[in-house]
Amino acid sequence: MEGNVIVGQSGGPTAVINSSLAGVYKTAKDRGAKKVYGMLHGIKGLIDGKYVDLDDKIRNDLEIDLLKRTPSSFLGSCRYKLPEIREGLDLYEKIFKQLEALDIKYFFYIGGNDSMDTIKKLSDYAILTNSDIHFMGVPKTIDNDLAITDHTPGFGSAAKFIASTMKEIIRDGLVYDYPTISIVEIMGRNAGWLTAASALARGEDCEGVDLIYLPEKVFDIDHFMERMKELTSQNRSLVIALSEGIKVADGRYVFELADHVEMVDAFGHKTLSGSAKFLSDKIAAELGIRTRAIEFSTLQRCASHMASRVDITEAFNVGGSAVKAAFEGETGKVIVLKRISDDPYMCITECADVHKIANIEKKVPLEWITDDDYVTEDMIKYIHPLIQQELPAIMVDGLPRHLNINR
Amino acid sequence: MEGNVIVGQSGGPTAVINSSLAGVYKTAKDRGAKKVYGMLHGIKGLIDGKYVDLDDKIRNDLEIDLLKRTPSSFLGSCRYKLPEIREGLDLYEKIFKQLEALDIKYFFYIGGNDSMDTIKKLSDYAILTNSDIHFMGVPKTIDNDLAITDHTPGFGSAAKFIASTMKEIIRDGLVYDYPTISIVEIMGRNAGWLTAASALARGEDCEGVDLIYLPEKVFDIDHFMERMKELTSQNRSLVIALSEGIKVADGRYVFELADHVEMVDAFGHKTLSGSAKFLSDKIAAELGIRTRAIEFSTLQRCASHMASRVDITEAFNVGGSAVKAAFEGETGKVIVLKRISDDPYMCITECADVHKIANIEKKVPLEWITDDDYVTEDMIKYIHPLIQQELPAIMVDGLPRHLNINR
Repeated sequence: MEGNVIVGQSGGPTAVINSSLAGVYKTAKDRGAKKVYGMLHGIKGLIDGKYVDLDDKIRNDLEIDLLKRTPSSFLGSCRYKLPEIREGLDLYEKIFKQLEALDIKYFFYIGGNDSMDTIKKLSDYAILTNSDIHFMGVPKTIDNDLAITDHTPGFGSAAKFIASTMKEIIRDGLVYDYPTISIVEIMGRNAGWLTAASALARGEDCEGVDLIYLPEKVFDIDHFMERMKELTSQNRSLVIALSEGIKVADGRYVFELADHVEMVDAFGHKTLSGSAKFLSDKIAAELGIRTRAIEFSTLQRCASHMASRVDITEAFNVGGSAVKAAFEGETGKVIVLKRISDDPYMCITECADVHKIANIEKKVPLEWITDDDYVTEDMIKYIHPLIQQELPAIMVDGLPRHLNINR
Repeated sequence: MEGNVIVGQSGGPTAVINSSLAGVYKTAKDRGAKKVYGMLHGIKGLIDGKYVDLDDKIRNDLEIDLLKRTPSSFLGSCRYKLPEIREGLDLYEKIFKQLEALDIKYFFYIGGNDSMDTIKKLSDYAILTNSDIHFMGVPKTIDNDLAITDHTPGFGSAAKFIASTMKEIIRDGLVYDYPTISIVEIMGRNAGWLTAASALARGEDCEGVDLIYLPEKVFDIDHFMERMKELTSQNRSLVIALSEGIKVADGRYVFELADHVEMVDAFGHKTLSGSAKFLSDKIAAELGIRTRAIEFSTLQRCASHMASRVDITEAFNVGGSAVKAAFEGETGKVIVLKRISDDPYMCITECADVHKIANIEKKVPLEWITDDDYVTEDMIKYIHPLIQQELPAIMVDGLPRHLNINR
């Protein structure tokens, strides 16, 4: 085949983003690619001329298997938004010169919403300039907020970590004979998918979380405090799951009701957190109940040791499918997952136009959120197949082994 | 054999406290105990007449194996300190009447420092009143702060979770091409053992944490900020581990330098947390560097899915040894672990006088803390064998299975 391949990773890491990298690398090599380059720190690194030959970094099949089990972006990441084409012609020209110098014909970018924006702009520029480089998006995000695709690689593993850890926190939280309230804060700015995954903790051997609050619904603090009073008056201990992005009626985040420093990232996203802490302090002060605020924080997106095998396999497959589609002539597309059946669970990959995906957020349907602060069976049925099975960590000297690009 | 057995659990849960319960139960049954009762919520529950026949709750060998993998206290816990004997004669009389009514001859209490105080007082009372009930302590605490014993069951699993998760956080934290600082706050009021375990993350495939701060040494904020400036000026990203209990020179906890609500538990222990958040806010504000504060919180003490097999086995063995020793006539003792060899690692159990253990805290030796804010090889050699090997979770429907006393 003609030309070389380059692949990059962008945005927040996930537990399985490297499985997609493995899928791109292995499929490209298997299908005859001479060189597969990796951008270091995404498009930003490419602009600065930073890339590696992946043959030097993934040396054998064992390392491919380690790569699948390595959290975070093996190649490094960036949070860099390309300018609109008309406002950045010099930059686009520079990027395409760089690609031509490496004889790149196939460009893969593994990332979320913001990364799909990069694919959209580069493939648009290619059309405008009659370039024959193929640009394909490979989806990832723990947030599960990409449009069109049934779900996003990365979500299933984060959901599995959340449900597993929630089971452990519930065991820990119900241990005393007086009421305690544990409030667990879960990632999710505008979409509550991850927080909803806490519902999977409930089962034959587990009481489950008591209440679930998603950002799709206005958070009513008075109602919340009433429920706390009512439920703990029965001497019950509670475990509550809430999204970092819950907001009160006037549009402020719950954590903004406390004193707090705000930070904004390169995409203008606020760095959120502190709603669980704010509410647990409020309950302790006003109701005199012992509370504990827990933030899953970074752990929920990098817990490869608890990754879902379904997710790892799908992440690998979207990478492989992107290569196959690009080699067959596609460009300006994103690989999406289409669920064929719930039971038995079956999911296939398809191509979707990147313009229909970039910059669109998929939220939890309101009809999947119940009036008594929980989620419906439909929600549980949707997430359930995505957390199934394991790909056990390769344990070396007591710890999970990773593949490190610098070692 | 004569008489029955009762066992209780107390204090903060660990990932393997139920393995000690399994050790007490199975060894007692194997050695001919007719009844093995479990106190619900420790001595507090016993006083209130709350107990179960464990044969009804642990029904077969599979359930023993599930019990070993179940975090937190299967029987429920309490934070209840018995009064001094002379100040609570009525209460002691009530407890002993309760024990006599159940024909208890052997009393086992699984817990940390405060629980060993309970064993001390009950066995002292037994001597004073010529009771023939045997009282034995079974040590547990993630904090590893019990005297005499080489280490404490529960510590190895928490250490393994910390080192494993730290490896994942390091991969996540080093992903960008600009400096970021991740500060991870780890449990440990006065003893830094758990925080020191983060040193095990460093290895062939991992850069490791950069700096480690334990409560045994005064925390110098100016020195800390200087180091932040110096290290990030090389465009390096950092991952820092610190104990929740670090204090500045005037004796205040670091988190007390911020506005904060304090809570005090039944033993007068302050509920600590917030030092990582305080320092990360300070760095962001003064140095303009992106920071992230992460608290391992409850997760580090209940992560049975990442338990150390060495720890699970030792936890089981201290339970079993307590039964053996009591059945052979010991009372007023605690089972301790004695390390015979580092390499190959070998550890045996012994009996120690409870008066020599209760209410004494074992801290990290100062010579194991280095001047450049890290720990020595001796420290790493000490912890290393305790995190080895796994007892994989029994996964059912995608999640770790537990044994639940209420189901």
